[in-house]
Amino acid sequence: MLKILVLNGPNLNLLGTREPEIYGSETLQSIESDLRACAEALGGVEIEFFQSNAESDLITRIGETRGNFDGIIINPAALTHTSLGVADAIKAVADAVPSVEVHLSNTHAREEIRHKSLTAPGCIGQLMGFKGYGYVLALQALVKHLRSSR
Amino acid sequence: MLKILVLNGPNLNLLGTREPEIYGSETLQSIESDLRACAEALGGVEIEFFQSNAESDLITRIGETRGNFDGIIINPAALTHTSLGVADAIKAVADAVPSVEVHLSNTHAREEIRHKSLTAPGCIGQLMGFKGYGYVLALQALVKHLRSSR
Amino acid sequence: MLKILVLNGPNLNLLGTREPEIYGSETLQSIESDLRACAEALGGVEIEFFQSNAESDLITRIGETRGNFDGIIINPAALTHTSLGVADAIKAVADAVPSVEVHLSNTHAREEIRHKSLTAPGCIGQLMGFKGYGYVLALQALVKHLRSSR
Amino acid sequence: MLKILVLNGPNLNLLGTREPEIYGSETLQSIESDLRACAEALGGVEIEFFQSNAESDLITRIGETRGNFDGIIINPAALTHTSLGVADAIKAVADAVPSVEVHLSNTHAREEIRHKSLTAPGCIGQLMGFKGYGYVLALQALVKHLRSSR
Amino acid sequence: MLKILVLNGPNLNLLGTREPEIYGSETLQSIESDLRACAEALGGVEIEFFQSNAESDLITRIGETRGNFDGIIINPAALTHTSLGVADAIKAVADAVPSVEVHLSNTHAREEIRHKSLTAPGCIGQLMGFKGYGYVLALQALVKHLRSSR
Amino acid sequence: MLKILVLNGPNLNLLGTREPEIYGSETLQSIESDLRACAEALGGVEIEFFQSNAESDLITRIGETRGNFDGIIINPAALTHTSLGVADAIKAVADAVPSVEVHLSNTHAREEIRHKSLTAPGCIGQLMGFKGYGYVLALQALVKHLRSSR
Amino acid sequence: MLKILVLNGPNLNLLGTREPEIYGSETLQSIESDLRACAEALGGVEIEFFQSNAESDLITRIGETRGNFDGIIINPAALTHTSLGVADAIKAVADAVPSVEVHLSNTHAREEIRHKSLTAPGCIGQLMGFKGYGYVLALQALVKHLRSSR
Amino acid sequence: MLKILVLNGPNLNLLGTREPEIYGSETLQSIESDLRACAEALGGVEIEFFQSNAESDLITRIGETRGNFDGIIINPAALTHTSLGVADAIKAVADAVPSVEVHLSNTHAREEIRHKSLTAPGCIGQLMGFKGYGYVLALQALVKHLRSSR
Amino acid sequence: MLKILVLNGPNLNLLGTREPEIYGSETLQSIESDLRACAEALGGVEIEFFQSNAESDLITRIGETRGNFDGIIINPAALTHTSLGVADAIKAVADAVPSVEVHLSNTHAREEIRHKSLTAPGCIGQLMGFKGYGYVLALQALVKHLRSSR
Amino acid sequence: MLKILVLNGPNLNLLGTREPEIYGSETLQSIESDLRACAEALGGVEIEFFQSNAESDLITRIGETRGNFDGIIINPAALTHTSLGVADAIKAVADAVPSVEVHLSNTHAREEIRHKSLTAPGCIGQLMGFKGYGYVLALQALVKHLRSSR
Amino acid sequence: MLKILVLNGPNLNLLGTREPEIYGSETLQSIESDLRACAEALGGVEIEFFQSNAESDLITRIGETRGNFDGIIINPAALTHTSLGVADAIKAVADAVPSVEVHLSNTHAREEIRHKSLTAPGCIGQLMGFKGYGYVLALQALVKHLRSSR
Amino acid sequence: MLKILVLNGPNLNLLGTREPEIYGSETLQSIESDLRACAEALGGVEIEFFQSNAESDLITRIGETRGNFDGIIINPAALTHTSLGVADAIKAVADAVPSVEVHLSNTHAREEIRHKSLTAPGCIGQLMGFKGYGYVLALQALVKHLRSSR
Repeated sequence: MLKILVLNGPNLNLLGTREPEIYGSETLQSIESDLRACAEALGGVEIEFFQSNAESDLITRIGETRGNFDGIIINPAALTHTSLGVADAIKAVADAVPSVEVHLSNTHAREEIRHKSLTAPGCIGQLMGFKGYGYVLALQALVKHLRSSR
Repeated sequence: MLKILVLNGPNLNLLGTREPEIYGSETLQSIESDLRACAEALGGVEIEFFQSNAESDLITRIGETRGNFDGIIINPAALTHTSLGVADAIKAVADAVPSVEVHLSNTHAREEIRHKSLTAPGCIGQLMGFKGYGYVLALQALVKHLRSSR
Repeated sequence: MLKILVLNGPNLNLLGTREPEIYGSETLQSIESDLRACAEALGGVEIEFFQSNAESDLITRIGETRGNFDGIIINPAALTHTSLGVADAIKAVADAVPSVEVHLSNTHAREEIRHKSLTAPGCIGQLMGFKGYGYVLALQALVKHLRSSR
Repeated sequence: MLKILVLNGPNLNLLGTREPEIYGSETLQSIESDLRACAEALGGVEIEFFQSNAESDLITRIGETRGNFDGIIINPAALTHTSLGVADAIKAVADAVPSVEVHLSNTHAREEIRHKSLTAPGCIGQLMGFKGYGYVLALQALVKHLRSSR
Repeated sequence: MLKILVLNGPNLNLLGTREPEIYGSETLQSIESDLRACAEALGGVEIEFFQSNAESDLITRIGETRGNFDGIIINPAALTHTSLGVADAIKAVADAVPSVEVHLSNTHAREEIRHKSLTAPGCIGQLMGFKGYGYVLALQALVKHLRSSR
Repeated sequence: MLKILVLNGPNLNLLGTREPEIYGSETLQSIESDLRACAEALGGVEIEFFQSNAESDLITRIGETRGNFDGIIINPAALTHTSLGVADAIKAVADAVPSVEVHLSNTHAREEIRHKSLTAPGCIGQLMGFKGYGYVLALQALVKHLRSSR
Repeated sequence: MLKILVLNGPNLNLLGTREPEIYGSETLQSIESDLRACAEALGGVEIEFFQSNAESDLITRIGETRGNFDGIIINPAALTHTSLGVADAIKAVADAVPSVEVHLSNTHAREEIRHKSLTAPGCIGQLMGFKGYGYVLALQALVKHLRSSR
Repeated sequence: MLKILVLNGPNLNLLGTREPEIYGSETLQSIESDLRACAEALGGVEIEFFQSNAESDLITRIGETRGNFDGIIINPAALTHTSLGVADAIKAVADAVPSVEVHLSNTHAREEIRHKSLTAPGCIGQLMGFKGYGYVLALQALVKHLRSSR
Repeated sequence: MLKILVLNGPNLNLLGTREPEIYGSETLQSIESDLRACAEALGGVEIEFFQSNAESDLITRIGETRGNFDGIIINPAALTHTSLGVADAIKAVADAVPSVEVHLSNTHAREEIRHKSLTAPGCIGQLMGFKGYGYVLALQALVKHLRSSR
Repeated sequence: MLKILVLNGPNLNLLGTREPEIYGSETLQSIESDLRACAEALGGVEIEFFQSNAESDLITRIGETRGNFDGIIINPAALTHTSLGVADAIKAVADAVPSVEVHLSNTHAREEIRHKSLTAPGCIGQLMGFKGYGYVLALQALVKHLRSSR
Repeated sequence: MLKILVLNGPNLNLLGTREPEIYGSETLQSIESDLRACAEALGGVEIEFFQSNAESDLITRIGETRGNFDGIIINPAALTHTSLGVADAIKAVADAVPSVEVHLSNTHAREEIRHKSLTAPGCIGQLMGFKGYGYVLALQALVKHLRSSR
Repeated sequence: MLKILVLNGPNLNLLGTREPEIYGSETLQSIESDLRACAEALGGVEIEFFQSNAESDLITRIGETRGNFDGIIINPAALTHTSLGVADAIKAVADAVPSVEVHLSNTHAREEIRHKSLTAPGCIGQLMGFKGYGYVLALQALVKHLRSSR
């Protein structure tokens, strides 16, 4: 059984009402449902889903994955571009718990500050622009990586 | 009745003792009193006053304004220049809950890192340099905006 | 009696027809009226209102304030971002005649060249984004400053 | 039937021997096989697979998709970071033929010149770091997008 | 008889369908017709019209002009901003075959990467923003230059 | 009848003696004559020709075009690169009175400070490097634009 | 008796398992022990040791030192390079409670983002690269400073 | 007889009251007197002294020197750093009328914007930091240059 | 027998007529002759000489060297500074086929864009400024390297 | 017995009279005394103390440490920020003779040019801001490092 | 009696043969003669003249001026732009021994690296472009300053 | 007889033990031997070989070459990137004594500070990456240049 922690950063709790022309009209709940359905379809995969507006919550949760989770899917939202702390946390566990970064929108098509990711270099990969479906793809990518590297 | 949320960021709890040559000798309490007096004078205006050192508290409070408040006055303090998360929160509710940014000091006359505001672009306006009286002006500006856009 | 000089820079004579989606549909005349009304309401305040497209006119008028005016409200318009000469003038009289900078639009939400103000560091404060009402707020701020520093 | 054009840029013909510690040991042929298998599994999807070392070939092929293909998967390789011409081509057909950008390696973890993508802003999304499996995910993402936007 | 080579760079074959709000709805064929009509009207002017998506084709054609053509009109499109090779070619023949650079759109009003031209410094002049009519003006400018410098 | 205002910025009164290796040996008077001849040849076109060393004169004249002129040809000279005020004026009337920017020399082949134009983004187009003949081309371009957009 | 607050920022709870080739294999507990031993050896020194992943916790603790502590030793970890809020807090109490900044690794030998410290300018000094022993040196430096400035 | 035009830019009319800690307490009148005394002492030298807050006045006066003056001493004040127009004027007459640039204060010891001079490259030399006496030195330098180059 | 591929990039076919003050008056043919003479003199060295204006030709030829050539001498010309694709190709075969970069002119003494080489980091060395003789030196350097690393 | 070379760069001979508000009033002699006392207290440590204004002296002394010293304490003073030669020397012996960098003042609180250290990356650590006592701490750090790595 | 130390930096010993189109054809000896003549003319002024190619010689000589000289005239030549050590030395004695910086050529009209002076901020003033005569002017300026500040 | 001065900058005396993975295991003595052997083989060539850690020694030796040497081979080592003084010296004699710059390592493949050479623009050419053999190639290049330009 693979245990995957799915982390969501600041303002993602507002999905559905937040700038829908950028982020779409899905809610975080519907994304979670789709992801759980995908986990079930893949078989042998268990997900824990978590959102917080606090950088420290993300850092703490990432730090606690060692020995408890097999991988991380993370949408650090605004923290992608400003939090060296989250980036450090991802690297701190990367030898044991690989991460995949996901974004709802295509950040390359937005303001310049969103073009650079501090957190992506510590991840195995990154994907963006596929709205909520991106989480499903991220799970596939992570499971593929975990199973092929064993 | 207009409901206005007044948010204060990190270190503003220290006003009065904190670098008084920059921030003045008013306390946050006296600013709150002046602001409440102004609200009363304007009539039909209710304010809720809140300070936190945590970026996440500000993000969460802003996210919860939709449907509960008519406008926001925010002094993001140091987060003005570093928090894309607070900036995203302001934009996430801007269609329904407009914000005004206020600073006690004239940040243009200080270090370069304080010249750029990440949060101001999502606000309707910004004012700085008028010490605690700036909050009173911000309230007037916000109420004027809310009443004229109805 | 406090004497306040209100200065308006290039293109502000075009208000009303000039890019109204940015600058609103007020004319400079209506702003002047509102400001005079505010001065009267404050009591003991006299304003002189002046617009010019010439950097030199603004510099000259600022230089002549010493001994003739108690404070300056200035909207340097495009010169905000390009005129070290106006900035120098403001600083040249700042020990005797404090200035407040005002902008109709929220320049932080516009092109990058408008994010930096050369003139603001010499002023006591700056406000932006409140359309014509910003002048009224600026007058209040300036009068408050002048009366509390006596 | 959805027709998808899969484009591969310079040096991707060398996969297998080219810096395997970065690009893995898969060949482009095995990636193509996996992708065709995925297309079949998805049903109603047909792919055309093409590699060239010439920027002009990619531009020409993209320009010819209008009316002939439903979507594009593109790994522009080095051209990602230097070719405004490929970026222009992607945008030129984007109203009719959406693109997804894919990279074998996590370019955010490599030299700075590879952090910025000229081509991504015209695409609906981008994914990187999942080696050859990234093409399979890209196909899923693109088909999902095409089917949900109909 | 003046022989003028008219060169068109990548994606210009797509004119008519390509982002018409930027490039207009003329096709390259109609531009060619207008230009031939202009050449005839000027008298003693012969044009050869050529489009390619390949940087190398443009470089090769420019290199071959010495002794075969009297001047060049070139719209390097995206290569304007990225091709030092085309710029070198223009300079390599500039002593014998002067060039005029033309752009359909006003590139100064677009993304920053389009503000700098690598190719313009080797040309006698540049014009932009006049849609297809710009080619006609370029021909006039070039013929004027060639005839007055004899 | 189309009324066109032709504006010339600082130092252009010195043409003929000013650095002739850069600006040529034509005087502003001969440029004006050629332009009037062109206007006559075009038919139904009237030009007013004006030079000033003062940024404010240019701003004022541009501001007064609304309702009085159909288009503007402007060579802002040094102000091209430093005057946000002239740029603002051009934009302020652009909905009613389109502008074309012209330069005598090829500014891309000169110092870096002359590579960026603040004024061009508000114009419909720009041309440079054709000496005095550039004004004639600018007039043709502007008339063409005015007549085709009616 | 000198009371010293020792603050540790994000991810320092992971010491021992976190990238040991950079941070060494000591745990935060062993660092605390060594530091307490040093305090005892110095005599008349009492330390309080605290770690948090939350920027707000550090800000709050620093703000509360006035009147309660004589000095601060701080390893802001990732926040060193991104938190203006922690920097502001350090400055807010610096007149009464001086700080010393310590880093386990030699940040000058790491990525560029770690070369600049936002927090160091408000401290009396900084030391880095001596692993856990750096805390012991920091304590000596701080005690020396406190005792010599009395 | 050598005729020298002495030009003074914006705000220099305020000398004596303007930030005396930077500019000293001399007035422009006393500088003029000292300079006239120096001219007399040198013999065969005539000066014309002029101050204006307007960039256009300086440009116009410089443009009119050809045939009327032998050299220029100029303190462009704030325009030193922002006026390409004054720089162009200096260059436009430099073949016939050489300029010397003078500053009262040591601009290298002030804000960064004052470190770069747009106008100095067109002058034969520059001197700064010697208060009003700098004009006297500038006159000596200019006369020396004029007499030795004949 | 050592087999060496000698690659020449865009515009090098024009040598002899192309800006001879920069590139000298040798033709590519005479360089090839000199190089063949040198290969013969060295003994056991065979060269293949190739020029193309196309980046893709260079990339393809480099990619095909594995197993067919022992080393590469490359003058990427303009592509030195713009082609990440050629740089990637050089690195893709560097484990088996080392490259030496050569330039006819001293690019450090030319425009800034020519100061940075994208391609040199993947080569064993680079030499510039020795006109056609540089190829002969490059061959010596490469043969020396190949023979000493066996 | 550990032999430690203590190197002091340019202007440190002036300590005591040199800007005492920055560097304190200690002389280099008193620092040396304190350091010798510390060496004695540590036991088994011998120091050689050296100051020079010449970069070459520092480079030469560092180069000669191999085989003769066990470690280096260096205050490169101004050379910290400008001397790649000293940085290279430190790295040249770093495998055998580790260095510790020390500064009297907190360079992070001074001009920007002093924020970046060229020499620190080759050292094991750096400390700053503790005046002369910093040398004592540096010695402790170095001895600790040397003894623990044996 | 005022004692003035005149310092000359690297390569100034080559004056006369060194790039005479930039530095003129005077030798350092003739400059020294002219300067001694000026000192005599001024009366009560004694100069010591020194040239060295070594940064350390300049630093040492400056450091030794305290108590031995009244002022310094320095042409740091290339060190102007690269030596923080010379800049530090100038500042170290500035309270007692003021400096004037002189350059033979107009460095603002040369390469960009020569536009910024590290050493000028610590001097009372700077002058450039007047060839050897600049030293005479510097001496006048320095003596004027010394005599007026007593 | 051609007399060639071979100059070696800081730290090159350490070759053999200094970071051999970068600089190789040759000593400067073996490089000198190889170079003398090459000089003999070329015939009519005499070399003088010199190493110093002092920038001033290199400057002085270069300055003395006029009339005494025919050419210079220089490896400025770290001074390549920081010494404008050495660059000035090379230019000061370049009309009579041409220089060739050589580096042991491929500096383009190392840290960014080593990508830019201050000294190369004054040389006829530069070569790097060929270890000690680079000196032999440099000698060939220089002799070729000297003999062909006579």
